[in-house]
This record gives sequence, structure tokens and C-alpha cells, in this order.
Amino acid sequence: MRITKTFAETRTATAGRVGLVPTMGFLHEGHLSLIEAARDGSDTVVMSLFVNPLQFDRDSDLAKYPKDLERDVDLAAAAGADIVFAPEADEMYPGEQLTRVNVNRLSDEMEGPNRPGHFEGVATVVAKLLAGIQPDRSYFGRKDAQQLAIVRRMVSDLSFPGEVLGVPIVREAEGLALSSRNIFLSVEERAAALTLSRGLLAAGDLAEAGERDAGRLIAAVLVEIGTAPDISLEYVTLASQELVQPLDELDRPAFLAVAAWSGGTRLIDNVHFDGDEAGFVADRGSRLKTKSILYGGEG
Amino acid sequence: MRITKTFAETRTATAGRVGLVPTMGFLHEGHLSLIEAARDGSDTVVMSLFVNPLQFDRDSDLAKYPKDLERDVDLAAAAGADIVFAPEADEMYPGEQLTRVNVNRLSDEMEGPNRPGHFEGVATVVAKLLAGIQPDRSYFGRKDAQQLAIVRRMVSDLSFPGEVLGVPIVREAEGLALSSRNIFLSVEERAAALTLSRGLLAAGDLAEAGERDAGRLIAAVLVEIGTAPDISLEYVTLASQELVQPLDELDRPAFLAVAAWSGGTRLIDNVHFDGDEAGFVADRGSRLKTKSILYGGEG
Repeated sequence: MRITKTFAETRTATAGRVGLVPTMGFLHEGHLSLIEAARDGSDTVVMSLFVNPLQFDRDSDLAKYPKDLERDVDLAAAAGADIVFAPEADEMYPGEQLTRVNVNRLSDEMEGPNRPGHFEGVATVVAKLLAGIQPDRSYFGRKDAQQLAIVRRMVSDLSFPGEVLGVPIVREAEGLALSSRNIFLSVEERAAALTLSRGLLAAGDLAEAGERDAGRLIAAVLVEIGTAPDISLEYVTLASQELVQPLDELDRPAFLAVAAWSGGTRLIDNVHFDGDEAGFVADRGSRLKTKSILYGGEG
Repeated sequence: MRITKTFAETRTATAGRVGLVPTMGFLHEGHLSLIEAARDGSDTVVMSLFVNPLQFDRDSDLAKYPKDLERDVDLAAAAGADIVFAPEADEMYPGEQLTRVNVNRLSDEMEGPNRPGHFEGVATVVAKLLAGIQPDRSYFGRKDAQQLAIVRRMVSDLSFPGEVLGVPIVREAEGLALSSRNIFLSVEERAAALTLSRGLLAAGDLAEAGERDAGRLIAAVLVEIGTAPDISLEYVTLASQELVQPLDELDRPAFLAVAAWSGGTRLIDNVHFDGDEAGFVADRGSRLKTKSILYGGEG
């Protein structure tokens, strides 16, 4: 395992089919599942690790974003990464970043209006990683459903040759979707947060049983969240996987996504529906059997 | 010489160091000088040929843009191109182009406000060509001075590994900068248009003689243009090569650029000033000895 600091060094260190896993570090089993997926189809697996200031809409969120390079490098190596590309801010943004990449329409809903500039920052930094590393495949978690759709569209619209793969959500044993931000949750906030995944998985059952009405799928989530009086909801939306446009009916590949605050921590979660009108399958993700490495355990 | 229609086919057809010359076709000696420059440092020279609708701010301009693929392919081959990449619109824009690349600040002045959306269209299509073809070097004419600055910044900001080279303007024997649009000029309009290059070259002489004041350099251009009552001027501006910001004084690498209409044809021209405060050299470009191939001659 090698640590690189520049794009040029990273390109030189890669050979054969290159799989890229972009992360902001403070790894959990969700990231490790991306590395494992990349390991499967690649000769060289590069995990990038960069806390991208461009995509933070709140300075406070950027300031408190957890960091531990040594821990991340060990975890990435154990999961099968060949290279950890951990650039300094000077390599990523040597001057003022005047060039910006926007994916119109797909940024209009859900996270877009709630996090001004966020997706411009994501699209711009991912374009840099793809241009600078030239991977054959890149791997993104389905947890950031809208981000995944935006990256897919950007790669296709900008004629990048690489393929984008979406990897299922990894959940804690009780269902909470893994996120580096989960470490900020108190015991009570964590209990309340469980209503998000519980509601989404209930809606997944409904959809697999034939429910197509967005209102009723959303209601299944709201009912669960309603049992936790301390959750502050931002949205529950059913949207198309391709264009992230809200749907009245589940009639194409879609995802049902929720964003909410539990205490001072903003959480997102979703269930993807794959298939077509003949039948949809809910992607419930996978569940850890033990406590996540986020909490200092050994996984 | 090979003609390719898709990015994938083009990547497969290239080997070794790849030099890219992006064009919109209807070639003249200016384009050929780009191919010759690329020939020098490349194993494979790719000339792309695509009239990019995204960068036309006026439909009438797009509709009447001259096209002749057979002629262009012959000329490119003779000049040393290995591949002409001539995609259909469906390959470049298979769906709605939702992803847009903008280079902020550098688009604010000169051509920017006069041609809304133009540089977004240019930056987006050049990003696609670089992402899809992965050249080691790409070659752009200095005639489109602001475009060259924007492409340079985009390549650096988006961490594309390739180098961008600017190639001097090629002028007709009387000084008129070559442009595919010159074929639309009547005899009188062409005579009037000559005042642009005459003014710019006079300003070049002044700068080399030590003049640093932007107002006086601009005045030298205005005096010449003033002798042709039928020219409708859009701007004469001295701007920095790096950020395309208007300068009061020639105190860094810069270009003095003019845009004007002669009859129904919009023309641009410029002189680049290279060097530093110790002394600047004006890039006057090169001059054809015979009539340009634009007019149906053999060069």
C-alpha cells in the first residue's frame, strides 16, 4: 500500500484496470465495501481521501468533520486498496478554483435547495479526480443517492470513459445507515434516528408488495418518524434514479429518500427501487452483525 | 489518415503521445499551423471537427457556419493529422447536455458579455474532448485569445494532465487574421477589416518601443479603425493573459484585442504581449505569401 500526494504520482503508480473510490476519510464499513467492490474488478484500487471544502455549505460542518489519516490508511490497506491518494489542499486547489461543474436539473430537488453549492462542489471535485486519475471504474455509495445520480450524469455528459458503479448502503445492526457523522449522535438521538431506516424499509416492503403511489410510500416513512418527536424532518421524496425528479408514482427506477436532523446532526438515508413496472426490488443494503468501527471497535 | 466517429474508436486508434487539435472545420492555414505544431511533439495527431451548437449564441451564425468535410479531411491529412475525429451530434450530445462547465471571472469581459453562453459552450465541449480523448497536449490558436486563456485555466483547475499550447495567428498577406468567416466579406468590407490588424500591429510597435499605457495602446487601434467609417466596433481592450482582466498598464503578459463588425460579419483579432516589465515582445503572427485556401486556391 502506497500513499500518494499528487495526481502525477498517482497516475504513475497505477497499472492495468484502475478502480477509484473517492472518500472524505474517517472510514466506516460503507467505505470498505466500496473498496471491496473495486478490488473485484481492478488491477489497481485507488482510494482518494480529501475533505473537499468546496462541497461544504456550512463552515461549522467542515470544521468538525472527523479526521484520522493513520486510521484510514490502515483500514484502506486491510480492505484491499493499493494506493491512498491523500492530497493537500494545495494540490487540489493550487489557485482559486474558478472552474465549476454544474449538473443542471438533477441538483434542483432534495439536497440541492437544502445545501446551496454542495453539488457544484461535488461535481467539480469528482471531475478533477476523474480527469487527474483516469480510472476505468469509480465507485460511489448508494447512500448519497442524489450525488450518485449527479456523478453518473456528469460522467456521461462530459464523455469520461470510465464507468460509475453504485454500491448498496451498509447499515448498523439496528438499521441506521452508516455515516461518519453518526459519531456525533447521543444515545437518545441515535434511537430517534432509527425511525428513518425503519420507515424506509417499511416503504420498501410496501413497494415490493405492489404499492406504486408515492404518497402512500412517503406516508409509511412519516408514520415511523412521527413516533420520534425529536426528529426535525427536511424532506421525504420519491425521485427517479436518472433525473432525480420527484415522482407521483413508482413507475421507473427510483429512490425514496429522507433527510432529517436528530439533535445537531443532519442525517440522510434512502431505499433504491430497481426494476420496472413489472416489479420493483427494494435495495435494503446490508447490515453489520457487530458494532461499527466508527465507534472504535475492530468491526 | 483515419476518420473516427466515436470517442471510444478514437481512443483505440491513438498510440504514444497524443496531440489534439480541436476545430469546427472549414479549415484554413491557421488550423493547419496547429496541426503542424502538434505533429512536432506527438506520435498521434488527432484533429477533432465538430461544429458545436452549444457555443453559438446566435442561431443564424450556427446555420450559416461553412461546412465541407471532404475538403477538411484532405487538408488535415496533407498537414499531418493521423486521425480526424468527426462525431455526429448524437455522439457528442446523446441526451440533453445538463452538465455545464464554467470558468468564472475569465468569461466576464470582452467576448463574454457580447456572446452570452459562448464560453460555457466552449469550456463544456473542450472538457468533453479532453476527457474523452485524453491527449497529452492540445493546441489552440492565439486568435481566440480569451478562449485560450479559459481553456488553460479549465485544464489546470480540473486537473487534466495534458498541456495546452497557444499557437500564433496566421494572417493573410495584407494582415487580416484568418477566419472561416472571412469568406462572407465583400471587397469593401474586407478593405475596412484590414484596419483592425493595422491598428493592432501599430500598437505592437508602440509597446515594443516601451509604451505601457493601455489608453495609448488602445488609441493606436482606434485611430486606424477610425479611417474605416463602416466598421462597427464592439471593444478594444488590453487584458492579462492569465485572468483576462482589463489592464490600465502593460505590466504582465497580456493581449490587446479587438472585436468589430464589418458589414454582417463579426471579426476578432489581437496581439499578444509576452515577456515582463523588462521588455515585451509583440506576437504579430505569421503572414501568408499567397491567397488563403479559404478562397478556393491551393495555398
